[in-house]
This record gives sequence, structure tokens and C-alpha cells, in this order.
Amino acid sequence: MKVAKFGGSSVASAEQIRKVANIIKTDPQRKFIVVSAPGKRFKDDEKITDMLIQLGEAHQRNETIDEYIYPIMKRFNEIVEELNLEGEILENIKNTIYAILERNTTVLEKLDALKAVGEDSSAKILSAYLTLSGIEATYMNPKVAGIIVSNNPGNAKILPESFDKLYELRNTDEVMVIPGFFGYTKEEKLITFSRGGSDITGSIVAAGVKASLYENFTDVDSVYSVNPTFVDNPQEITTLTYKEMRELSYAGFSVFHDEALIPAYKEEIPVCIKNTNNPDAPGTYIVSEKKPSEKCVVGIASDSGFCSIYISKYLMNREVGFGRRLFHILEDEGISFEHAPSGIDDMSVILRENGLPIEKEKRILARIQNELNPDLISIHRNLAMIMIVGEGLVRTIGVAQKATTAISNANVNIEMINQGSSEVSMMFGIKAEDLDKAVKSLYYAFFE
Amino acid sequence: MKVAKFGGSSVASAEQIRKVANIIKTDPQRKFIVVSAPGKRFKDDEKITDMLIQLGEAHQRNETIDEYIYPIMKRFNEIVEELNLEGEILENIKNTIYAILERNTTVLEKLDALKAVGEDSSAKILSAYLTLSGIEATYMNPKVAGIIVSNNPGNAKILPESFDKLYELRNTDEVMVIPGFFGYTKEEKLITFSRGGSDITGSIVAAGVKASLYENFTDVDSVYSVNPTFVDNPQEITTLTYKEMRELSYAGFSVFHDEALIPAYKEEIPVCIKNTNNPDAPGTYIVSEKKPSEKCVVGIASDSGFCSIYISKYLMNREVGFGRRLFHILEDEGISFEHAPSGIDDMSVILRENGLPIEKEKRILARIQNELNPDLISIHRNLAMIMIVGEGLVRTIGVAQKATTAISNANVNIEMINQGSSEVSMMFGIKAEDLDKAVKSLYYAFFE
Repeated sequence: MKVAKFGGSSVASAEQIRKVANIIKTDPQRKFIVVSAPGKRFKDDEKITDMLIQLGEAHQRNETIDEYIYPIMKRFNEIVEELNLEGEILENIKNTIYAILERNTTVLEKLDALKAVGEDSSAKILSAYLTLSGIEATYMNPKVAGIIVSNNPGNAKILPESFDKLYELRNTDEVMVIPGFFGYTKEEKLITFSRGGSDITGSIVAAGVKASLYENFTDVDSVYSVNPTFVDNPQEITTLTYKEMRELSYAGFSVFHDEALIPAYKEEIPVCIKNTNNPDAPGTYIVSEKKPSEKCVVGIASDSGFCSIYISKYLMNREVGFGRRLFHILEDEGISFEHAPSGIDDMSVILRENGLPIEKEKRILARIQNELNPDLISIHRNLAMIMIVGEGLVRTIGVAQKATTAISNANVNIEMINQGSSEVSMMFGIKAEDLDKAVKSLYYAFFE
Repeated sequence: MKVAKFGGSSVASAEQIRKVANIIKTDPQRKFIVVSAPGKRFKDDEKITDMLIQLGEAHQRNETIDEYIYPIMKRFNEIVEELNLEGEILENIKNTIYAILERNTTVLEKLDALKAVGEDSSAKILSAYLTLSGIEATYMNPKVAGIIVSNNPGNAKILPESFDKLYELRNTDEVMVIPGFFGYTKEEKLITFSRGGSDITGSIVAAGVKASLYENFTDVDSVYSVNPTFVDNPQEITTLTYKEMRELSYAGFSVFHDEALIPAYKEEIPVCIKNTNNPDAPGTYIVSEKKPSEKCVVGIASDSGFCSIYISKYLMNREVGFGRRLFHILEDEGISFEHAPSGIDDMSVILRENGLPIEKEKRILARIQNELNPDLISIHRNLAMIMIVGEGLVRTIGVAQKATTAISNANVNIEMINQGSSEVSMMFGIKAEDLDKAVKSLYYAFFE
């Protein structure tokens, strides 16, 4: 039995919801359906979730809210009418919104409840439409399903007892339509996951019911071997391991909510990324293990917005505890870093640029200078990281040569190489301004 | 004014000591001479220091010592006779040895005092021979010179007050001949530096008298760009920075006692490595700064005897304190490591193989497994590190490409690359069995 999750663009309009129903119809194994809130229908369209957040903020400011509610209801109205569903659903959505606004809860709880209306309504609409289309289907509230979460508004964490409760649902005959993005605390408060959290709900349900597959329907045919903003029509990836997906998503592959892989990974449920608009495309599978293929590199990910702190001190490696004292300063200042490669008399600390705001920079440099007395300390901003990812890297001679040659051929200086610490990736640091040409050159070297 | 230190092979025989006297004669700036104990005259010859250690050990075992003293005195006798010096010097050496053996001191102090007889006698012989050759010269005991050290037998550390005392000597008219390798505590106990410590004495004297140059006479014309065991007649290095020398000596360039650079570095005294047997060769200069040259790589160093611990755990980078807890286990077990490059869900710890004895391996792996619960943990032994060193690396595009291409062309798999943590070096980890072919290939790529 399969769990299928449909993203915002898959439920953005009546036309899209018809596609979803068709997809469900064509495979009777698709028993658990998780849905997002209606997303964008076109480039400058608004997402329902954003509209609900604006409504909540207006309400907090004591503004009149009718002008915020109207466009939300208009979107739902269009969908419901076009699908020939009963008007009762619309009444229900409107009543839910007003009830939340009037309820006496904290600001954060109110916002979480409002945000959840998008997913909740999607699920109600889809189950009604499935029933109308002759498919036995039920809307299932996360509270009833057993999605029990911690009390962290906007950043709920699933509690372990959820999985046993979900497992009891597994022998359903009907199609269960579950809204994504939120769960309930033990005290029955509605709390949402972090943004994009329908992926998380899908993964939790798949792990709970021990699905044979977790299908994640989006609007792309597959995960691509490189970000299409760099290269036209890049190669599609057929199969990825969880490890490969992790490395790719770290450096900018945002196909899939990072946290969402965890429940599926733990239960070894394979994940398939598919396209609602082209369901016959094979998609990309994410699995625990795959057979070694002749291709050692599966993808090239990249991300800018990094910086580094470089510290050099003659005889550093004879100074006991130098690294520890440096890390202590960073921890003390609330700076978290990504990597800290060390030489003999040198150390670099690589971090996300937003983790080292300019106003903190001066104080941290001064502290390092005073407390560690280095010969040289410098900060390099505007760095980008490129990750070359593949389980085959460790067994293949010449990958580093191929990669460094491609980068040199693009006339790009390599600021940093980190190879060998991970068996499935190789990391290069370059200047952010060189990112486009370096990634292009690497793509052509490994994939064309 | 210059400080010149002559190593063991430079004072191994009367013939060598004549060369030393000539070198001193040709440059009146050479006012402070530091000498080692007589070293090897030919491949299987014995060093006086080793003979003195054997004597000390025999004495401890209460063996008859005559058969140990005889060959020592025979060596000194040959030198003294051939140089036509007074027999009084020999009497003095013999009496010194017996006095040490009879003195009521600790075992370690006795051994230190015995070991120092080699350098001390060398200095007495050389100053006598210089005087005989018409050069005004004096033997100067380190106690008189002001070399004051900590009370760590076999591993003395210089105390800061020494430098002021040494500075008072600087306006000498005579040539001062100072035995290397030992100093005295404030309580006037004789304590030696670590083995090879005459380099340290030379550097301390150079820093103390603020010499314009510290000449270190050995039996090679220069520092070579690669170890001559890998390549015949490798290129000589004209000038190195202290930083470059440090990186090279870390990975197997044993030209110069690592600790010995410190006093010269601190006072920015240039160091020149020269050959007693070919004093007209320009030698290799070690300096604070050098002009950027067109050559970005000055040397390729390498060393085997490394191993790595590789740890992989899905979602490691979300687990706060993972690295800290790993380092805590290593510290707890008394394991010190060289580098710890990290990936997203992986970490490697690189260490010297002798720092992870087989009998500890099992316990440490078990602790890491129990306390950190990783998905995978493995130890790789028989690794070698290659360092490509040069102050120009940071400004040069394509060095990584050249290096990785050379290694690939030798059909060698690269286990690890660490670039960017140091601005003057690039580190490659490979299997030790591949070291010879990788180094050869790199040498030809960068130097031919």
C-alpha cells in the first residue's frame, strides 16, 4: 500500500484536483493521500497559506478582516464550484476561520490554527470530489489519525507514539485523505510543522502505516542532476540513496523538505518524487541502498551565502587546545559553523553568511585576536560551495582530477577542497561570483 | 655577526674538523660556533652520543665499563692526535666521564650528563684546534654562556632569561665555541634538549646574540624540493619561508629539528642550511618573507604511518555536539589526532598510526559505537600524506588540477584532499603503498 502526498501546485485549482483524483484512481494501492494547501496556479499567484497568514496578522492588528477573508473564500469557491461539490464545504471553511479568530487562544496558537485551514480545506475538498467520482474516500483529521506532536507552534516535532496509532489505520478499505502540515498535542492543541511541512506529514504517515512506497507528487518530473537555473534540460536522476539526497539538499537542492526524509529513512520506506502533471514519467526514487552503477556522480549541488574565518599562527599545532578555545569563542557568541578544516599552523571555519552578521564580526575578530593571539586572521565573504555527490565516488580514481580540471577550465580559483571526510561527496569552495561558470563546467564534465 | 652550527658529520673526524676551521677562518663574521658530538664517518659507523648512552646503560646494570669507555676514548684519541693537540684534552674528557659515573645523582641526570660529553668534548677540541691554527677562540660552557633550561631531563626547554644573558656576549672579539645539546637549570644541573638538540642550541644562541644569520652546516648542499629517495638529483630550494619549512618538516622533511626553528623565528633571524663538505654551495635560506616568485610550489613532502577513523551517521549534522563527544572519547583514551575533516553526515579523524595501537583500537571503536551510535565506523590503516607546499598556492589557479592529474596519472586513488585550511599547503591522503609513484608523478608535474 502506498502513501501519496500532493503539493500545493497539485491542488491549486479544480483542474489540478481532477488530475490528482485520476492519479489516485489509476492505482488502488494509493490508500493514504496527504495534501498541501492550494498553491500557485501561475507565477505571480498567491498561495492560500500566505493569504491565511496575512489574515491572521491583520486580525492581530485589529484591522477589518473582510478584505482578507474574501479572496481566500473566492479561491475555494472557484474550486468547489468547478468540481460541482456541495456549497456546504464552503460554509464549513468560512465557519472554521471565524471560529479560530474568535477563540480565546495565544497569538501563536491562533496563527497555527489559521495556517492549517489551507491543508484542512484541501483535504475536505479532495475527499468530497473523490466520493463524487465514485471512489470510496474519507477526510481524516490528523487528531483522529493519531499525528501527535510537541507543543512548538510553527515547528512541531512528531512524538513517537504517533507511529503505533497510525499503524492501526493500515487495513483501510477507503482512501484516507489527510491534511498535511499539522498535528495535535496531547492536550489537543493544533500545532503546525515548519513551512513546507506537508512533506513531513506524508513521511510520517508512510512510516506509520509501513507503506511500500511514499510518493511525493510535485510539479517536476524528477530530481535533476544539477539545478536547471544553471543548465538547460539537465539529466534526470533515476535513483538516489538517502545519503545522496541529504548531501544534495544540504547544498541547495530544495526538492524535498530535509526533515521530511527522517521518518521514511528510519523505516526504510522508499520515496518517489513524481509529477502530478506528468504522472507517467518514472520520477526519482530515494532508497536506502542501490546497486553500484557505472556512473559515480549522481548530482552537482551548489549554494552561495557562505563565508570563512581563516586563522594562521606559527606553531599552532604545538599549542594544546587552540582549536577548542576557538570553538569556545564561537559557541559563546552563538555562532554555529559548518566545517572547520585544519592545517598544521592554520585553521578555517566555514559558516553560513547569515550566521555571522557584520555587527558581530568585529567583536568576534577582536576576541580571537585577544584570546588566541594569531599571526593572521581574516574573513572571506561571498563564498559558494559546490558538492559533487555520488555513492560511487569512493571507489573511482580520477574524480578529483576531473572536477578540478573542469573548475580550472572555467578559469575559477578553488578556495577550498574537502574530500574524503564523506565517502559520498566532494566539496569545493569558490567565490560566489564564479558559481555559474564553475557549475556549468562541472556539469558538462560529468554528465555530457 | 653570524652563528654557525656544525652537525655530527662535520666534527666526526680530524679531517672534518679542519674543514670546519677553514670555514670559520674564511668569514670573520662567524663569531659563535655551536657543535654537535662526533657523528658517523661512514654508513655503519657509530655516533659518540650512542656510545655514551650505551656506557650509561651498562653502568646502570653494574657491568664493567672499561669496554664501553675504550672505543669512545679511541675515537677522541684519533681526532686529537691527528690534529696535533695536547694530550691534556684527552685526560680532561676521561676524567669528566669518570666523575659523572661516580657522582651521586639520579639515573636520568647521570644519563644527561654523560650524553653531553660528546658535544662538550667536540667544543673543547675545536677551540683548541682553532687556537693552534692562529684563530683567537675560547671554549664556552653553556652555563657560563647563560643557557638556562627547565628541569626536564632529555627534553629541556629554554627559559626566557637566557636570551638577555646571551645578548651580553655579542661584542666578543674571540670566536666562542659552545657545545650544543644541553644547558643548565637554575640549580646548575646539566640537562639535555631532545635528541638532535644542537640545532636548538644554535638557534637559541642566534636569537640571543641577535645574529644577522644562523648558519646550520650539515652534509647536504641544500634542502631539496622532494626527498631524494623518491627522485634522483631533485631541484634544490634556494629560499623557504619559516611557514613553508614548517609544513615541509611536518610531513617528513627532517633537515632541521622542528623545535629548533622557534627561537630564530621569533627574532626573525634568517637561517641558512649549508654543507661543510661544499661550503661554496649557496645553501637554502629560511626567512620570514620572500618575494613572490613565478614558482608557486617549493616542495613536496610526504610521510607514511597515518591512519584514519571514518564515522558516518545519517543526520549527524543535526545532532548537536556530535563532534565534541567524539573528541571527548579520543581525549579520554589519550589519543591525539592531526586533522578532523567533516562532511554533512560524516567525520574523519586523521592520526599518526603509532598513536592508535592495535590493542586500543577495539576499545575505542566499541566506545564510539556505544556512545555515538553511528551507522558506520571504520579504521583505515597504512595511509600516507603528501603535502604540496608553497606560499604562492593561494594565488594560483590550477594547482589542484595539476596535482590531482599527476596523482591520477600515476593510477593512484586519492583518499583525502584538504585544501584551503592552509594558504601555503595542499594535503593529499593516499594508500602508503602508492606513495612512491604518486610523489614521483607530482615531482615531475611541478618541477620538470
